[in-house]
Amino acid sequence: MKPDLLLTNIGQVATLAGHSESPKTGAQMSDVSIVENGAIAIKDGKILAVGPTTEVLAHVTEAPRLPEIEFPGMLATPGFIDSHTHLAFGGSRENDFAMKLAGKSYLEILESGGGILSTLRSTRAASQGELVRNAFSFAEGMLSMGSTTIEAKSGYGLDTSNELKMLKAVTDLREMLPINLVSTFLGAHAIPPEYEERTDAYVDLVINEMLPAVTQHGLAEFCDVFCEQGVFDIEQSKNILLAAKRKGLKLKVHADEIVQLGGASLAAEVGAVSADHLLMASDDGLESMLKAGTIATLLPATAFSLDTKYADARKMIEMGLPVALATDFNPNCANESLFFTIALSCYKMKMTPREALSAVTINAAHALDRGDTHGSIEVGKAADILILDCPNPEYLTWRFGVDLIHTVISNGEVVHSKLGP
Amino acid sequence: MKPDLLLTNIGQVATLAGHSESPKTGAQMSDVSIVENGAIAIKDGKILAVGPTTEVLAHVTEAPRLPEIEFPGMLATPGFIDSHTHLAFGGSRENDFAMKLAGKSYLEILESGGGILSTLRSTRAASQGELVRNAFSFAEGMLSMGSTTIEAKSGYGLDTSNELKMLKAVTDLREMLPINLVSTFLGAHAIPPEYEERTDAYVDLVINEMLPAVTQHGLAEFCDVFCEQGVFDIEQSKNILLAAKRKGLKLKVHADEIVQLGGASLAAEVGAVSADHLLMASDDGLESMLKAGTIATLLPATAFSLDTKYADARKMIEMGLPVALATDFNPNCANESLFFTIALSCYKMKMTPREALSAVTINAAHALDRGDTHGSIEVGKAADILILDCPNPEYLTWRFGVDLIHTVISNGEVVHSKLGP
Repeated sequence: MKPDLLLTNIGQVATLAGHSESPKTGAQMSDVSIVENGAIAIKDGKILAVGPTTEVLAHVTEAPRLPEIEFPGMLATPGFIDSHTHLAFGGSRENDFAMKLAGKSYLEILESGGGILSTLRSTRAASQGELVRNAFSFAEGMLSMGSTTIEAKSGYGLDTSNELKMLKAVTDLREMLPINLVSTFLGAHAIPPEYEERTDAYVDLVINEMLPAVTQHGLAEFCDVFCEQGVFDIEQSKNILLAAKRKGLKLKVHADEIVQLGGASLAAEVGAVSADHLLMASDDGLESMLKAGTIATLLPATAFSLDTKYADARKMIEMGLPVALATDFNPNCANESLFFTIALSCYKMKMTPREALSAVTINAAHALDRGDTHGSIEVGKAADILILDCPNPEYLTWRFGVDLIHTVISNGEVVHSKLGP
Repeated sequence: MKPDLLLTNIGQVATLAGHSESPKTGAQMSDVSIVENGAIAIKDGKILAVGPTTEVLAHVTEAPRLPEIEFPGMLATPGFIDSHTHLAFGGSRENDFAMKLAGKSYLEILESGGGILSTLRSTRAASQGELVRNAFSFAEGMLSMGSTTIEAKSGYGLDTSNELKMLKAVTDLREMLPINLVSTFLGAHAIPPEYEERTDAYVDLVINEMLPAVTQHGLAEFCDVFCEQGVFDIEQSKNILLAAKRKGLKLKVHADEIVQLGGASLAAEVGAVSADHLLMASDDGLESMLKAGTIATLLPATAFSLDTKYADARKMIEMGLPVALATDFNPNCANESLFFTIALSCYKMKMTPREALSAVTINAAHALDRGDTHGSIEVGKAADILILDCPNPEYLTWRFGVDLIHTVISNGEVVHSKLGP
C-alpha cells in the first residue's frame, strides 16, 4: 500500500475503536483503546491503517506521497467533534455581562429585551455574507483548537427568510473551511417579539412554513427545539419535533436546562438522537432516555457562564447513559474550546480524562449520527486526527483548559500545525 | 522623532496610565484610560509616544525604521504581568487527578506523598538544563498568551543546592526568551521529608544557609513563604521573612489560602509587597493590609482546580485594597493563561472586565515593584504591548477564557503575531 500521509512513532494513539455501531456507555467510556508507539497511514482522506508502528510499516509497500512524520512522546486522538453549537449569528454580546454582574438571570435578561433578542435583531440586520464572515472566524478558531466536525444551529432569525439565511450561511461556510459541518434547524429557539403571547401561532409558522422551506432546500439534517419554561412547552415542542421527523429530519432537544419541564422524557418519546443540557432532568426522564438510546449531551461551559449548577454526569455514566460533551458555543457562552469543556467536565462534573475524551469523539459522533464514519481512528473512517503536545490523556486534565494542539488533520489534510522546518 | 516601530489606528488603546507611583484602588480599577483610534510609537524598547493617532503622527518627523502597522478595530493593552507563578519544576503531575477525583484534599494528597512531594523528587532528580527545558515550554506558552513579565518562584528543591539550581534555571531562561523574568526565593514552600517533624530545624536551614547563598549570588529579588496550617506557622514565616528583608529581599506571602492562620496580617506587619491567595483572610487581616499598602494578589485558577471557594474580590475592591490577578501556574494548577484567570475573576469573583485588566497590568506591575517601568502604556516605560483581536475590554469577558492575542510586543520587539503578508 502507498499512503498519502504516514504518521509514525506516535507516543500514544487513543483510537477510540470498537464503537462505530453504538456509543460508549458506563465503563466503556473509560477505555480509549491506546496503542503505544503507534502509526497511522492515510489515503484519499481516509484511514488506511492504524496500529503499532512496526505493524503499520510492514504493510507500507511503497513510500508515502508526502514525507513520513514522527511524533514521539505525543498523543494522537480522533478529531474532536463539537455536537452542539450556535455558530452563526450577527453582532456580539459583551454588554450583557453588566446585567449578569447586577445579578440578572438568563430569563430576566431575555425579558428585558437583551440576551437572545439583541442577537435576533443583529442577525436579521446582517446579510448572509456578514453571517458567513462572523461564523468563519469562530469556526476557524474551533478548527485550530481541534474540532474537525462541528454542528451549527440556526435560531437567531426566527422568521422563514432569516432562518433560511442562517442555514445558507452555514452551507456557504462548508465550502470555505476544511471542517465537517452539520446543520440543525432551530426555528423554535425563542419566540420572536412579533409573536409575543402568541406562541402557538409561532409554532404553526415553524411547522407549516419554516420546516417545509428548510427541508425543500435540504438545508438541515437535524431539527432542535428549546423546550423550556417560558419558551416552548412540552406539547408545542412535541408538535414541532414530530413534524420535523415526518419531513425526514433527525431530532435533538434542548432539555431540562433551567427548570424540570420533562424535556428528557420528550426527547426519548420522539426518538431524538440526543437530549442536551439536562441540568434539571428527572431520574424518570434519564431512565426513558436510557431505554430509547438517546444520548445525553452535556454543555458545562454554559453552566460556567451562567453560574448555575452542572449536570450530574457521574449519575448518567453510572446508570449507563452514553454521555457526549459539547461547547454550546453561542452569544451567551462564547467559548469555542473543547479543551475548556473537557476541563470543566473533569474539575466540575468529576468525569475522568478518558471519559471526557470518549465524550468529545466517538460519543459526539453518534450524537450527530456519524458514529460509522467519524469519532475514532479506524480503517475506512475519515482521517480526522489530532496530534496533541502531551504524553497521555490524563495530561489533558493536568494542563486544564490549555490548548495542547500540535497538529490538526482534517480529511487527511494537515490544516494546522506547529511542525517546524 | 524617528521611532523604530509605529502602531497606528488602533481601535482602542487601554493605556492604564497615571498610576506609576501607586497601584489602583476602588473605582480607579474600573478606569483603564481608553484612547480611541490610538497610536503608539516605540524606540529602543521604550514607549516614545502614545495618544490619538493624529497627535502621535504630528510628532513623528521621520519615517519609522520599520513599516507602520495599523490595527483598526483592535484593542491595545499593556503586556500582561503574571506576578505569581511556580514556573520551573521537574516532571508533571497528571496522576494526582485520580486522587482528586477520589475526593482527597490538597493537604491529604500532600500527606500521602503525592502532590508537591512528587514534584520535589522530580525537581531534585532533574539537571539545571532539564529544568530550563521544562520551564522554557511553559514560559513560551505564557508569552504567546500575552504575559510579557512573569514572576518565577523556587520551592521544589527544598535544600540549598536544589533551590540554587532552580533559581539558576530561571536566570538561564532570562537569557533565552524575550520575557521579563522576576525571581522569588521560596525555600519555605514545604517541609522536605528529611526534616519531617523538624520544621524549626528546616527554618534554620532556610535562614542560615539558603538565604545567604541566594543573596550572595544575587539569584532572587523577592522572598516568599507558604504560611499555612501544617506547613509554616506565623512565627516561623515571620522569622524567615524578616531574615530575608535584612538580606535586602522584597517580600511576598502565601497567605490564608486554606485556613485562616493570619497570613494577611503577617504580610502587612513585615511590609510585604503582596499577600497572595487570601481565600480565608479575616477582615482584620485585610484592614491591616490596607493600612500597610500591601497588594492583594488573587489566584482564581487555583480555586478552580482545587474546587474551593474563590477569594472575595468585591469586598477587597470595595474596601480600597489594590487587587492584582495572577495564574499561580504550578504543578497543581498547570494553566498558564491569564485569559483563563480573567474569565474566572469576572464569572466567579464578579470583577468587571476593566477591573480585571487593571489587575493583570498596572497592579500586577506594582506587585512586582515595577510600577514605574511596566504595567501601563506611558512615555518612557518598557514597550510591552498586546494587540488583542477584540474591540473593547468587555469583549474579553464575553469571549471568556479564549486567547484573543493578535500581536505580542515585548521590549519593543514583535515576538508573536498573526500579522499576515
